[in-house]
Amino acid sequence: MNKILAVGSLAFDTISTPAGKAEKALGGSLNYFSISASFFTGLQIVGVVGEDFPKTHLDFLSKRAIDIRGVQVMPGKTFHWTGEYGADLNEAVTLSTQLNVFEHFNPKIPDEYRDAEYVFLGNIAPELQMCVLDQVRKPKLIALDSMNFWITGRRDALVNVLPKIDLLTINEGEAKLLAGESNVVVAAEKILLMGPKAVVIKRGEYGAFLFFGNEIFSCPAVPIRRVVDPTGAGDTFAGGLLGYLASEGAGLDRKSLRQAVLHGAVMASFTVEDFSFHRLQRLEKGEIHARFHSLVETTKV
Amino acid sequence: MNKILAVGSLAFDTISTPAGKAEKALGGSLNYFSISASFFTGLQIVGVVGEDFPKTHLDFLSKRAIDIRGVQVMPGKTFHWTGEYGADLNEAVTLSTQLNVFEHFNPKIPDEYRDAEYVFLGNIAPELQMCVLDQVRKPKLIALDSMNFWITGRRDALVNVLPKIDLLTINEGEAKLLAGESNVVVAAEKILLMGPKAVVIKRGEYGAFLFFGNEIFSCPAVPIRRVVDPTGAGDTFAGGLLGYLASEGAGLDRKSLRQAVLHGAVMASFTVEDFSFHRLQRLEKGEIHARFHSLVETTKV
Repeated sequence: MNKILAVGSLAFDTISTPAGKAEKALGGSLNYFSISASFFTGLQIVGVVGEDFPKTHLDFLSKRAIDIRGVQVMPGKTFHWTGEYGADLNEAVTLSTQLNVFEHFNPKIPDEYRDAEYVFLGNIAPELQMCVLDQVRKPKLIALDSMNFWITGRRDALVNVLPKIDLLTINEGEAKLLAGESNVVVAAEKILLMGPKAVVIKRGEYGAFLFFGNEIFSCPAVPIRRVVDPTGAGDTFAGGLLGYLASEGAGLDRKSLRQAVLHGAVMASFTVEDFSFHRLQRLEKGEIHARFHSLVETTKV
Repeated sequence: MNKILAVGSLAFDTISTPAGKAEKALGGSLNYFSISASFFTGLQIVGVVGEDFPKTHLDFLSKRAIDIRGVQVMPGKTFHWTGEYGADLNEAVTLSTQLNVFEHFNPKIPDEYRDAEYVFLGNIAPELQMCVLDQVRKPKLIALDSMNFWITGRRDALVNVLPKIDLLTINEGEAKLLAGESNVVVAAEKILLMGPKAVVIKRGEYGAFLFFGNEIFSCPAVPIRRVVDPTGAGDTFAGGLLGYLASEGAGLDRKSLRQAVLHGAVMASFTVEDFSFHRLQRLEKGEIHARFHSLVETTKV
């Protein structure tokens, strides 16, 4: 089994959507990513939580073959994000961001993690993403996710790390912001010139694009009848994508990447069906296979 | 060759987009639909123009195997739409609508058109769409397109005509409006219960959904590097879709419909590359085949 070393945020989310409200639900990019990927492979995670973070949740992660020795528990409170979604479920509005212990996060990679073949640099400061890369030995595949906040505020640091990664996963709007370009195809092509060998553009309910080797793959989204909460969909997507690649021991090749992106779309479609990762908690492997096959059916000519 | 009988508007469009401006360019749903469909099959069209409509354009249509005997030339001016697109090229803002001779349009179907096997009821008042159906004998397949204006203002008349058609093509926003439902999948399912046997939801740069026989087909859009003017994309899409079906003599079956929707997406992708139907005017059949095959490649797993 090829394990994934993943770094990102562990957080509380307070969210309201047209379907309801969740107060201080468990969230964070690393949480969604690792629970999603754990359906495919083992993980070693690095993050930080405050003393208020429930021990039961860390136990839950451990039971899913997620190695939590890299999770630091620091004096203070856990990162807490508050946001809401209106009728347009594709876009969250941030109401407050309390970084708390996450503000001084300094990812230390335990020695037993440093030989990981697959590395996921979740949505944290690009300087910290670089600092993780300095600590790993010889990964086979490095994936990175980022967001508006870093693209705008830490552009140079982000641009420095892009040539060192293999695969970038990014939202459509963020891709346009990063490339300074309003057309999504041109934006992706410009980003490829910035370093990553493959770029996956996440388009919410409209699916995803994979740009790799002069080819574009159009990945549809799973048609969902009721979206309850889109929070974490992007990280769940990345978890399915990288989890699939790691479980296959795959590198960057056309077929593996296309299959991986479809698995990302499938995993994301479950997350949005409930608040927090409640849907992932009750998800069974057979449901993943069934939804994967029906998603592929929606594209057959 | 199975001809299509098509009814809709012939118009002047004054349009501004981020890429530039076109003054009194030729447009209208029937224009886009029939030029697009004429790459696949012959047409018989019914519409109305004013005395200011260029005779040279009617000659151009005739040369494309489009029978224009059903086009009435009335005293007065041709329908003139003025609109603009901002950064979001998926949504037009109407600045003015001068109906002119179109206001009193009363579609009279020439006797030699009444045996048409394929009928396209373009975007006109639903009462007029019904009046066309009363004049045709035994069509094999009837498709209909509509818009917000009729969904809101002539809802009952539109609901009356839906059980009489086979295929509805409609924008995503219009589908939600018609169904009174914010989720696109649920909206399409509700519309199927209103009568049509198949529903195609057009999603602009995000492609299209086909709902038919308890199955969903996700049709990607052709990735376009520079969208100049989206005007007419939806009617061009319908023209490719119905033109393909007519050229194959196909009815409603899964494989034909999926191929037809892909041809619709391909034709629409050309239209948006230039103002008016300038791109269609210089389009060659080989380009359609090439783009169809590369679109199918973008979905291969």
